[in-house]
Amino acid sequence: MPKTRWIDVAAQADERGIAIDKVGVKRIRYPIVVLDRAHGTQHTVATCNMYVNLPHAFKGTHMSRFIEVLNAYRGEISVNNFIDILKNIRDCLDAESAHLEVEFPYFIEKEAPVSKVRGLMEYRCRMTGAIDGGKMDLKVEVCVPVNTLCPCSKAISDRGAHNQRGEVCIGFRTARFIWIEEIIEIAESGASSSVFSVLKREDEKFVTEAAFDSPVFVEDVVRNVAEKLEAIEHITWYCVDVENFESIHNHSAYARVERDKRQAAASR
Amino acid sequence: MPKTRWIDVAAQADERGIAIDKVGVKRIRYPIVVLDRAHGTQHTVATCNMYVNLPHAFKGTHMSRFIEVLNAYRGEISVNNFIDILKNIRDCLDAESAHLEVEFPYFIEKEAPVSKVRGLMEYRCRMTGAIDGGKMDLKVEVCVPVNTLCPCSKAISDRGAHNQRGEVCIGFRTARFIWIEEIIEIAESGASSSVFSVLKREDEKFVTEAAFDSPVFVEDVVRNVAEKLEAIEHITWYCVDVENFESIHNHSAYARVERDKRQAAASR
Amino acid sequence: MPKTRWIDVAAQADERGIAIDKVGVKRIRYPIVVLDRAHGTQHTVATCNMYVNLPHAFKGTHMSRFIEVLNAYRGEISVNNFIDILKNIRDCLDAESAHLEVEFPYFIEKEAPVSKVRGLMEYRCRMTGAIDGGKMDLKVEVCVPVNTLCPCSKAISDRGAHNQRGEVCIGFRTARFIWIEEIIEIAESGASSSVFSVLKREDEKFVTEAAFDSPVFVEDVVRNVAEKLEAIEHITWYCVDVENFESIHNHSAYARVERDKRQAAASR
Amino acid sequence: MPKTRWIDVAAQADERGIAIDKVGVKRIRYPIVVLDRAHGTQHTVATCNMYVNLPHAFKGTHMSRFIEVLNAYRGEISVNNFIDILKNIRDCLDAESAHLEVEFPYFIEKEAPVSKVRGLMEYRCRMTGAIDGGKMDLKVEVCVPVNTLCPCSKAISDRGAHNQRGEVCIGFRTARFIWIEEIIEIAESGASSSVFSVLKREDEKFVTEAAFDSPVFVEDVVRNVAEKLEAIEHITWYCVDVENFESIHNHSAYARVERDKRQAAASR
Repeated sequence: MPKTRWIDVAAQADERGIAIDKVGVKRIRYPIVVLDRAHGTQHTVATCNMYVNLPHAFKGTHMSRFIEVLNAYRGEISVNNFIDILKNIRDCLDAESAHLEVEFPYFIEKEAPVSKVRGLMEYRCRMTGAIDGGKMDLKVEVCVPVNTLCPCSKAISDRGAHNQRGEVCIGFRTARFIWIEEIIEIAESGASSSVFSVLKREDEKFVTEAAFDSPVFVEDVVRNVAEKLEAIEHITWYCVDVENFESIHNHSAYARVERDKRQAAASR
Repeated sequence: MPKTRWIDVAAQADERGIAIDKVGVKRIRYPIVVLDRAHGTQHTVATCNMYVNLPHAFKGTHMSRFIEVLNAYRGEISVNNFIDILKNIRDCLDAESAHLEVEFPYFIEKEAPVSKVRGLMEYRCRMTGAIDGGKMDLKVEVCVPVNTLCPCSKAISDRGAHNQRGEVCIGFRTARFIWIEEIIEIAESGASSSVFSVLKREDEKFVTEAAFDSPVFVEDVVRNVAEKLEAIEHITWYCVDVENFESIHNHSAYARVERDKRQAAASR
Repeated sequence: MPKTRWIDVAAQADERGIAIDKVGVKRIRYPIVVLDRAHGTQHTVATCNMYVNLPHAFKGTHMSRFIEVLNAYRGEISVNNFIDILKNIRDCLDAESAHLEVEFPYFIEKEAPVSKVRGLMEYRCRMTGAIDGGKMDLKVEVCVPVNTLCPCSKAISDRGAHNQRGEVCIGFRTARFIWIEEIIEIAESGASSSVFSVLKREDEKFVTEAAFDSPVFVEDVVRNVAEKLEAIEHITWYCVDVENFESIHNHSAYARVERDKRQAAASR
Repeated sequence: MPKTRWIDVAAQADERGIAIDKVGVKRIRYPIVVLDRAHGTQHTVATCNMYVNLPHAFKGTHMSRFIEVLNAYRGEISVNNFIDILKNIRDCLDAESAHLEVEFPYFIEKEAPVSKVRGLMEYRCRMTGAIDGGKMDLKVEVCVPVNTLCPCSKAISDRGAHNQRGEVCIGFRTARFIWIEEIIEIAESGASSSVFSVLKREDEKFVTEAAFDSPVFVEDVVRNVAEKLEAIEHITWYCVDVENFESIHNHSAYARVERDKRQAAASR
């Protein structure tokens, strides 16, 4: 006799007594539209992870519902509706907690410093949120390529100084909306120079000299960035990761600072 | 005395007598708009490589011009203007030959087989073109995830049969426009089953049984696909790569067929 | 006048008052020798990260010393000397805390279930340790490829059941030495079947039928594994991540359980 | 009635008339031992692909035999026995042609230029071979990280010059044995400076100044390297790919030269 398709194995009981922290779908690729300070919105392509908790008594979750929630938003995802999507995931999956992670490239038109020629720069972004009962949490991360010139190399060498591409990744929690663009400016200002998509000769001269005049270790970059994030009152937590793809080594130099201002305030 | 920015080092002479086949920019990330059979156009994000040749007498090329050509098209890239972009690269860089490679995820709304629930599927695409004097060449590649069920496992086992996700990559040159969607259909039809973004229980039953009824080795998939590409008259060259991410091994099974119909015709 | 190389920029003072949590070197590739239950030792290749803290008053750390510590051990790295290496990093860098992360492929000869043909299986391993003042911490992670067959697909389909390669990653802290091999056995026993390097036809039949007879969701696998880790008394903390590279979807199914037994004990 | 495991589906006939160029196993991870100029041999970990052709009349190949051939060599793989392994694959699989691709990290102890401190450098290597009837082919590739300093930036800037990590990949066919070490020296000598694992301050000064004194474009590096490969008589074919991970851009600069000396000789 043919089997019926109506058996819902996932809904059956489980007797091992083990609650599952996260269960769901991972590495879903999806075209999305995000907020853009210059143009209102921007089309990009995201990689998404969506999870819920699963109480110990249930055998499985319903994987197809995650995709249905994602489809319901038709790819419109931003910090503004992130908590709303999380609630929807939690409710559609009959769960207590829900997690959503969305990673995407974000493009900004950037002017060369002298010629003012314009080109598109890519920044990798990531929004990570969770809702657990009444508690909500939203974290944003932005990775910004920069140029770093070594202070030690400059100080000890009769000519030149080694420099390289580095990456500054800033994660933060905030009590008020902050544009990705503002975070990128903070990251870029902490390095020897920012990097560009198009540079004419006059720009290359400018960038080379500017970097030479502002040598920084990875230690300096994390501190420069942390200082600015510290000063933004509505940022309640931040972490800064800086990695230099060293031009004189085949490995990276790396530094990290993480700070929870609320915890710091509470412990005073 | 400060140096002038007007020295053009790249334009200087080189005396080593070595012509360079390809020189240019690589791994440029760029938001683009491509043709879409269902909706006219589609926004996506590309990774681009752009090169020209460099005759032996010149020291260097002018890297910033590549980005300027890319900017001039404002991200509108398709098989229709690909040769035009190539000519522009060649001319702006004063070169004889030019190369352009554009890779991007492409999304199609796909219906589940029974419930007809719709979800977005991602396919990786790649357009590779070259212009060399009067000769032009354009190649398109599409990578399609599929399900494959092992004929041997089915034949020898009393119950079940191992199956897994596989990937069919089809490259082709054509004398007439072909939609990416047509190529995807050919790839999917050569496997045990296609894969989906959302499947309800009734769909899962359907897909499981359909795959069980159509077992294929990687060898079968390349042949199934090759047979269909062979039959499309205006496809002049094709290659098919199939990789199974084996569910019983920690490595892949792989097969490949490549055929140049013009060469085959010429040698008869 | 030529500059002297003796200026130590990193040793200078910093006045921003920001202590750095981690600073050091990342992505160092290094051939290492690890412990192997069957053969005593095994040669492999690691990717290493090494960090220390940096008090707020110092401008920079001394990056070359990390590599010198690594060199001093000539690639002999195991859970037995991990804390010793950490102390060495801390002392050579004049720091209070030190971090070491070592990731490497580990190979085990594994027998096919029926033919007993032997082949090498690769498992990705990771040791992560920290020392902070008198506190020490060491965590080991092992990623194990497995086969999972879907219970829902089996229950609702008249024939067959979709299955796929999955990956079980187990992280743990332990009060006593545990062989990587024991952890791998736990991961493999929680899935529908383990995967192999070489299978003859009689083995393929065995594995196919065994998997069909033991259908598991990702939820089942995390629970099966968690149950066994829970029962090992000297494991004080564990996490289990399971990812199925779904054969009917182009994304993964995922589940995770994490448990700190000491915390659980303390809160009783 | 239980099915017999003796049915050999792969050995059945195929009637589509399509010969398969390559069929086999891909992404096999395997610990291997390779030749090392300084120490005789070196342990490393390889990723291997193994293929044969499949005549049109046969349905499938026998995948497990590839692994058995690999096991027979117990991981001893070098240019010396590569053709032998290829013949073995071809014979064990009853094929006419066979392909073997082996990629692995290779480590060399390298001295810092002034302090003479020693550290291990990693170079990615790849051996690719084919046997087709009586014809044999073997190609070796080595990827070498280097430092490149921009001649344009130096010429137009009043101080400093942007520099970055680059990668030189050399592929070659040779009529006589060549050490990987010799190829690495050629790649490193074509750049502004080579890169190191450990550098003390006096070394950093040396490397910074040496790079500043030898500015090169990617175009210069390919030419410098090509000139040396051209001069080695027993190298019959080579290609050189150079990629600069630009420190002032978020993309790479790239150049490539490929030359078949035999073809060039034949066409004179």
